[in-house]
Amino acid sequence: MPPTAPLIVQKYGGTSVGSIERIQAVAERVKRTHDAGNHVVVVVSAMSGETDRLLALARAIQPRPSPRELDVLLATGEQVTIALLAMALESLGCPARSYTGGQVQVRTDSAHNKARIRDIDGARVRADLDAGRVVVVAGFQGIDEHGNITTLGRGGSDTSAVAMAAALAANECQIYTDVDGVYTTDPRIEPRARKLDRITFEEMLEMASLGSKVLQIRAVEFAGKYQVPLRVLSSFVEGAGTLISFEEENVEDAKIAGIAFAKDEAKLTILRVPDQPGIAHKILGPIAAANVEVDMIVQNIAADEKTTDFTFTVHRNDFAKAMEILRETAGSLGAQEVLGDEQIVKLSLVGVGMRSHAGIASRMFEALAKEGINIRMISTSEIKISVVVDERYLELGVRALHAAFGLETAA
Amino acid sequence: MPPTAPLIVQKYGGTSVGSIERIQAVAERVKRTHDAGNHVVVVVSAMSGETDRLLALARAIQPRPSPRELDVLLATGEQVTIALLAMALESLGCPARSYTGGQVQVRTDSAHNKARIRDIDGARVRADLDAGRVVVVAGFQGIDEHGNITTLGRGGSDTSAVAMAAALAANECQIYTDVDGVYTTDPRIEPRARKLDRITFEEMLEMASLGSKVLQIRAVEFAGKYQVPLRVLSSFVEGAGTLISFEEENVEDAKIAGIAFAKDEAKLTILRVPDQPGIAHKILGPIAAANVEVDMIVQNIAADEKTTDFTFTVHRNDFAKAMEILRETAGSLGAQEVLGDEQIVKLSLVGVGMRSHAGIASRMFEALAKEGINIRMISTSEIKISVVVDERYLELGVRALHAAFGLETAA
Repeated sequence: MPPTAPLIVQKYGGTSVGSIERIQAVAERVKRTHDAGNHVVVVVSAMSGETDRLLALARAIQPRPSPRELDVLLATGEQVTIALLAMALESLGCPARSYTGGQVQVRTDSAHNKARIRDIDGARVRADLDAGRVVVVAGFQGIDEHGNITTLGRGGSDTSAVAMAAALAANECQIYTDVDGVYTTDPRIEPRARKLDRITFEEMLEMASLGSKVLQIRAVEFAGKYQVPLRVLSSFVEGAGTLISFEEENVEDAKIAGIAFAKDEAKLTILRVPDQPGIAHKILGPIAAANVEVDMIVQNIAADEKTTDFTFTVHRNDFAKAMEILRETAGSLGAQEVLGDEQIVKLSLVGVGMRSHAGIASRMFEALAKEGINIRMISTSEIKISVVVDERYLELGVRALHAAFGLETAA
Repeated sequence: MPPTAPLIVQKYGGTSVGSIERIQAVAERVKRTHDAGNHVVVVVSAMSGETDRLLALARAIQPRPSPRELDVLLATGEQVTIALLAMALESLGCPARSYTGGQVQVRTDSAHNKARIRDIDGARVRADLDAGRVVVVAGFQGIDEHGNITTLGRGGSDTSAVAMAAALAANECQIYTDVDGVYTTDPRIEPRARKLDRITFEEMLEMASLGSKVLQIRAVEFAGKYQVPLRVLSSFVEGAGTLISFEEENVEDAKIAGIAFAKDEAKLTILRVPDQPGIAHKILGPIAAANVEVDMIVQNIAADEKTTDFTFTVHRNDFAKAMEILRETAGSLGAQEVLGDEQIVKLSLVGVGMRSHAGIASRMFEALAKEGINIRMISTSEIKISVVVDERYLELGVRALHAAFGLETAA
């Protein structure tokens, strides 16, 4: 194959390689891509269930095993898959070679179990590609500067694939999953949800962090940073999936990419605290110190203009802890009252189009009002408007917004 | 720990690390050795059953998987064990680090599935030992000069341990197995068989190759070549095991180390072939070409003094094939007749003492004659006398020889 042939990095997750039959199906797809005249690098996860099996072994020895040794153990999961996939490719007559993260020099920092990739030496992979071979690389793993085996943490295989694509200046990084692309919203809630052909990196980041868990968020960030064209597609059904592209390429008319939502949120409010510099830190400092992650934050001046009302959301699991801390803070600050609500959800409209299109927020609020949905909290960013509403309005709200912005048909 | 502390390499096979409980028991033993003031390097195999599980996965993909990829797959077996053992050591408060063959630079040739170790760079291991850590190394595996993962073939972990001991100039290499040492003969045949405290390398080689399958023969050769003191002992019961030592250290009086035997032998004779130069090659060449391994070979001049009778033994599985080839050869050489016997066994007396002590052979023949056992074939080497007898005399012969040389009591 000429060195100038296009280079595609494909990544298959644990479900896609979860059995011998599925590995063989992946091999056939890889071979088709190879036979079509592409250089192909495949990044794979451990077979589904394998990581849990290994973790159970480790925990039988030690409830909190040494992070370094846990990485040595877990890295075997992907190593099994790369060998089996390379065998499957060779049995189809497609020359292939497998490599561990260490062998192709996926260099990471030394943060065992959650390492970050620093760089990848693509030379070895290049040599195999130029010799006409498919290269199969273990995702999720690397080595630190001392040669210790590291892992990137769960889901890290997406990042491995993107990093590999960046190091090799690949033409495209294809992430194969069990969904066939990114949708305008969750099809289980709105059956008319439409698969997007394209979405920008920024939109994808907002969609991913808000619950559309198609791609690991670090992988999307990585792809954006290194300008790697990323495509999400299904390993079970044919189709072009969704291309995550750079904004410049985006269609002018696409105002809104989709509706994201977060269930299991909870809202806390502290009323009438003195409106003085540093008050936000005094309120949120103890919350952060307790390792509670805060999502939305809204601060409003109160009616008396000398005090302020302060509201924020946390994950519902952290609600009780956060309430306890906030009550203590309220005491020391002389606040009037602390209110809490565990029965809320967050709905978000995401789209780079809203930067240049006015009136989107009011259209959103109007659509919700028409259905009698009361908005309890609002927060906006450049490409996203989020509202907090009562939990019972989740489905109704998502469908109302989906219809109001005409998302069931392509822009 | 001072760099001058003694250095012990311990090797544990698949049965010894076959479950979480056994790995924990190994960790306790390693810790005791470490706490007694020794530097300790541990070499481990895959947990019993794991290699077969991986092979089954490979064969489900490909009946004859790529040797390179098979090595990538099989190497995960030991990698799981090293991680678990290091965790178990750390949970006992014993600092430990695990390494794959590639990480400690166990460099082999590129003969996948049956690679041979060329050298080991002990620098990394040394650094850990000097820092007071136990080093746990994956047996059975290495890397070739291109960084490809290789394996040494089944049982190769013994060789890994000996090679590691040689590279580090260890004071002793201890091979833990499911037997507590080397015996004067198989205790299942002669209950009065005695565990030997010491045996020489040469004797061990003869005992191992003749059926006392305690140690991998390549490991013994390696240990002899690099003068590594080797000890065989049990991972399940306490005891000093058997030290495989250099001849000079051996006790003067020990004439005979033990009685080895080989069942499943078969004997072939070609009668009255012309007694001329190159006749042995003409007879054995076609046998070797068919990949049949020949063990004992005896050639005698025939009664007419112009022809010769030629007898050799092969494994019983190869008997039919060897007979067929030999009959063809007999035709082309104009031999009188071809005889075969599948119901024979080989009994061997092994001992470096026989070099300097006369009369051992006649004592052996006398002991067998007393029991009415007819000797069908005799072959001698410097430290071994082997006889072929009828299969039905196996147990009787072993016991007669064991008693005749007083092996039930230490010399």
